[in-house]
Order: sequence, then C-alpha cells, then structure tokens
Amino acid sequence: MTAEQLLATWNEGAAKSQILDLVQRVTKPGGADFLPPAERVATFDNDGTLWCEQPLQVQVFFLIDRVKALADKDATIEERQPFKALLEHDFKTLFGLGKQAIFELVFTTHSGMTEEEFAPIAREWLAHAKHPKFGRLFKQCTFRPQLELLRFLRANGFKTYIVSGGGIDFMRACAEEIYEIPPEQVIGSSAKLRFDTRAGRPALTKLAELNSFDDREAKPQNIALHIGRRPVLAFGNSDGDLPMLQYTKAGAGPRLALLLHHDDSEREFAYDREFRLSPLNEALNKSTEYGITVVSMQSDWNAVF
Amino acid sequence: MTAEQLLATWNEGAAKSQILDLVQRVTKPGGADFLPPAERVATFDNDGTLWCEQPLQVQVFFLIDRVKALADKDATIEERQPFKALLEHDFKTLFGLGKQAIFELVFTTHSGMTEEEFAPIAREWLAHAKHPKFGRLFKQCTFRPQLELLRFLRANGFKTYIVSGGGIDFMRACAEEIYEIPPEQVIGSSAKLRFDTRAGRPALTKLAELNSFDDREAKPQNIALHIGRRPVLAFGNSDGDLPMLQYTKAGAGPRLALLLHHDDSEREFAYDREFRLSPLNEALNKSTEYGITVVSMQSDWNAVF
Repeated sequence: MTAEQLLATWNEGAAKSQILDLVQRVTKPGGADFLPPAERVATFDNDGTLWCEQPLQVQVFFLIDRVKALADKDATIEERQPFKALLEHDFKTLFGLGKQAIFELVFTTHSGMTEEEFAPIAREWLAHAKHPKFGRLFKQCTFRPQLELLRFLRANGFKTYIVSGGGIDFMRACAEEIYEIPPEQVIGSSAKLRFDTRAGRPALTKLAELNSFDDREAKPQNIALHIGRRPVLAFGNSDGDLPMLQYTKAGAGPRLALLLHHDDSEREFAYDREFRLSPLNEALNKSTEYGITVVSMQSDWNAVF
Repeated sequence: MTAEQLLATWNEGAAKSQILDLVQRVTKPGGADFLPPAERVATFDNDGTLWCEQPLQVQVFFLIDRVKALADKDATIEERQPFKALLEHDFKTLFGLGKQAIFELVFTTHSGMTEEEFAPIAREWLAHAKHPKFGRLFKQCTFRPQLELLRFLRANGFKTYIVSGGGIDFMRACAEEIYEIPPEQVIGSSAKLRFDTRAGRPALTKLAELNSFDDREAKPQNIALHIGRRPVLAFGNSDGDLPMLQYTKAGAGPRLALLLHHDDSEREFAYDREFRLSPLNEALNKSTEYGITVVSMQSDWNAVF
C-alpha cells in the first residue's frame, strides 16, 4: 500500500506533509537523515490522543464500576471521599481533591491483586462497557487516523509505543487488541509491586503505593528508563505531554512533535483549556515557539472513528 | 540451520534437552503448549551469566578507571572511602561497606551526566579495556554457548532480554553490539533522572539517587514493569537471580529456569558460595526443590569463549 492509502483519513495539510517528510527522510537508504529501524521510535499518549477521553477518561468509567462493586459490599464507601464524588460524578470536587485522591481510587480498587488477576477483569469490562455519547464500545472509540498512522509508521520500520498517564496494566490489557501494541511497548502509571507467594506460587501483587505517575516530566524519564532512546516522533494532546514533545523535538536530526487539538464538537468533542486533569494551555499557546505541529481534528482528519 | 548447529557448543545432557524440549513445545503449531511469538519471552542475567564476572564484574573495572580519572583532579578522593578501597582493590573492605558504598561510587562517577553523554564514555572504555586473566577485550569475554542460545531462541521467535543488577546505561552501551539486544530489551539498575534544559536543549540528567537496584525481588518486579509478561525461560547464576527464576518457573505451561554453575577453573573460573556481592547458595542448594536446571560450565559446554 502507498502512503496515501495507508493515511487515507488524513487530509492534505502541514501535519500530513510533515509526517510524510519525516518518514521519507529517516527511511531513505544512504540519505543524510537515514536511521536504522532500531532507532525509529515513535511514542503516543493514549487518552485523547489515540482514543476519546471525553466526557471522562475511559479508565475513570472503569473505576466508577469498580467502586460500585466495592460499595455493594461496603455501604460506607458511598459516604467517603473520594468515592462519594466519583459515584456522584462530581468531578469538580473529585479533581479538587488532587491527584492523591485519584491514586486512592485506583489503589483501593486495584491493590492486593496480582497483575494476572487484574488483566481479565479489565478485559471483561472493556468487552462490554460503552461510551455514553457514541453508544459503542469504548475500545471502538479509537481514532481511525491514529490507527492508520501507527500502521504507517510500523510499515516503515518504526516501533510504536504508548506513553500515557493511564494505568500501565489497564492499557496493557487492551493495547495489543486495539492498537497492535504489545505490553512491553506500553509505558504508563504504575503501582509498586510486592514479590511473594500466592497460593504456593511466586507472584507479584499490586501495592497501594505509587511507583510512577507517568505525566509531564515523568514521560521523558520513563521513555529513558524503558526505551533508552529519544523518540523520533511523539504525539500528545495536553500539557501533560509537553515534556515528551520537547524532549523528542530537541533530538538531533529530523524529529516531529505533534499535538492533537480537539476542535470538533460535531464528530467528537471541542475542548482544550477548560477544567480537566491535564489541560491544554502552554503546549497550544507556544506551539510555534516549541516547534510543535498542531493537528486539528476538524481540518486534518476526514474521519474520526 | 538446525538446532544442533545453532547450539554447537552445548554438550548433550539435561540442560540442552530441556532447552530443545521447551522450544519445540512452545513453537509447535496446534500443540497443547504452543505460544504465539509475542508471548515467547526469555530473560538473562548479564554478569556471570552472559559474560565473565571474575575476578570482578566488568563494570567495577570501569568504575576503577572512572574513579582514577576523578582522583587525578581531586587528590582527596584517594583518601576517602569507598574510593580508597576501590583504588586499592580492597574488595573485602569495599563490599563490607555495603551496597550503599557501591551506589556512591556509581553516583559520584556517573551523576550530572546526560545519558547521551554517558554512552560514548562507556563505549570508548569498552573499546579498549581488557580482561586481566584472558588478555582480551572485556566485550569479547562473552560466553559462546550463551550467544548461541540467544540466537537459537530468537530464531524461534523469542524476544531476548537482559535483566541484570548492572547499570542499565552501561549495558545498553554495548548490548546491541555484543548480544544483538537493543536498549529497550535491557533492564538493569538505574538512577533517577531529572528533566531539564542542557545548553538550551531539553535533556535528562542522571541524579545521585537510586531509582532501582535490579537484584533479587526487583528482577521480577522490573520484568513486570518493563515487559508485562512472565518469562518462559530465565537464566541466572546467583541467588540474586533466584526470584526471577522462581517467578518464571511458577508460570502456567512449560517454563525453564536455568542456573549457570561456574565450575571450570581451567577455562574460566570455579566459584559459587564464596564472598562476593551476590553469592550462589540457596539457588544451588535447593535447585531440585525449586525446579531449577543447573548448567555446569565444565560438562554442559564444550567451549566457553
């Protein structure tokens, strides 16, 4: 397939031209910017970059259902924060409680499980849970132009990674199915693990303690830890992605930092600066200064899903 | 090439049979134990498993040379511990100072550098530094049967990883050249990184603070963090590898945990229980109980280097 066929849902424009130019340059044998396949690393944020994150991030819907399951067994849950705010969908209060409140929700619902116990729970939920606006499965709320871009990059020898603030195990439970990205290429937020014996068998159990919140500066730090190479292309959609975009762009040779702007209320959602965990301000305001290419959902994509 | 050709330096015996049996089982299409290539994960310790770790670990020789370079600029270094013990090759004193002393040596010589500054220093050193007994470059002190095993596993769809107590950046500087293992498949001990601006350019700088000491329980914990799958085969040579071997062996389906026993003073070294950072006691004493296959350098390998 040609690049045009592989990127069928990308309209002509600066973003598409820059993607095609970068790939042409790094893959041209003997060219000044040629990179061996091993060095072709592309990193993508997940929520709001590869799939829809409105009206709430997919994993927050999962958390609500997990907290409901806990509340069925323990009625006091409904009266305690941050659970109360979550169950009442009072996100102004919830986000006002700070990141620690979000971690408490995650730890309360996930800790004590082994990873091998957690994965089927997440997969079972993802097999049935539907998006409230679009009425289709969350895992079908991935952006078609991004699936095309992932495939186009892989067809050109790139290794594609997810680098997201989302939970590493939650994403690993579905990334292979929906993005063809294997677990070892998924980097995310994680809890510390304890190595002990579970039913006579050595296993790793999730603890109620943060290992890494994979947001902002932690994104390039975790890229260095997990990958050990500076990306050639990075794609994000919020200020939480800004350090990853700047780190990528500052590498030698051709580099591309892309920022998805959700400006399409008709086909998806229009939002940027308003209230949410990782707003979009600096990355959008200073995109030119930072050499970041803004991708407009409305004008750069001829299809969204 | 046939398995026999690929594993030419492995003698007939339990270890070789078990390796061949495992690979045959997980690769047989339609077989009860078949695994898709994505699930064929093999993890190898490095020091004493893939390359020689006697009379000292390769990275300790590197540290000595780095500390000497520091001492040339600051004469007080020679009088201070742990530097004094290292420069005097007084490893009894050095190891007696505990792991923190080793970290101090690493932090003092490595911190403040970006990863991109560190890699060429390590590569330059590895291009010239020679083993004191064998008189050849350290990077030529890899074990030939292990290079064959890595290639044999990859030829059968396995992804091969290093999971070592050694410094992650030191190993990444040479793993691709000597083992054909790319940086993203190298897991090791690491320092925390700071994201900041270096000569006007966003970069990551190594801090004098431990992120992970990849030994014992940390090995399965880091396997879960970086890979997200339980290995099918793991290979170590000390009690520092025991949790990784047990974690591997406890997975469902066929699994193989291998332990290299250095019992060949003629061709390499003979050691196990004596004084060193990670001695070999429990893993060897309880190998049968734990289902660990002991590989004898003397009898299982017809060549070492």
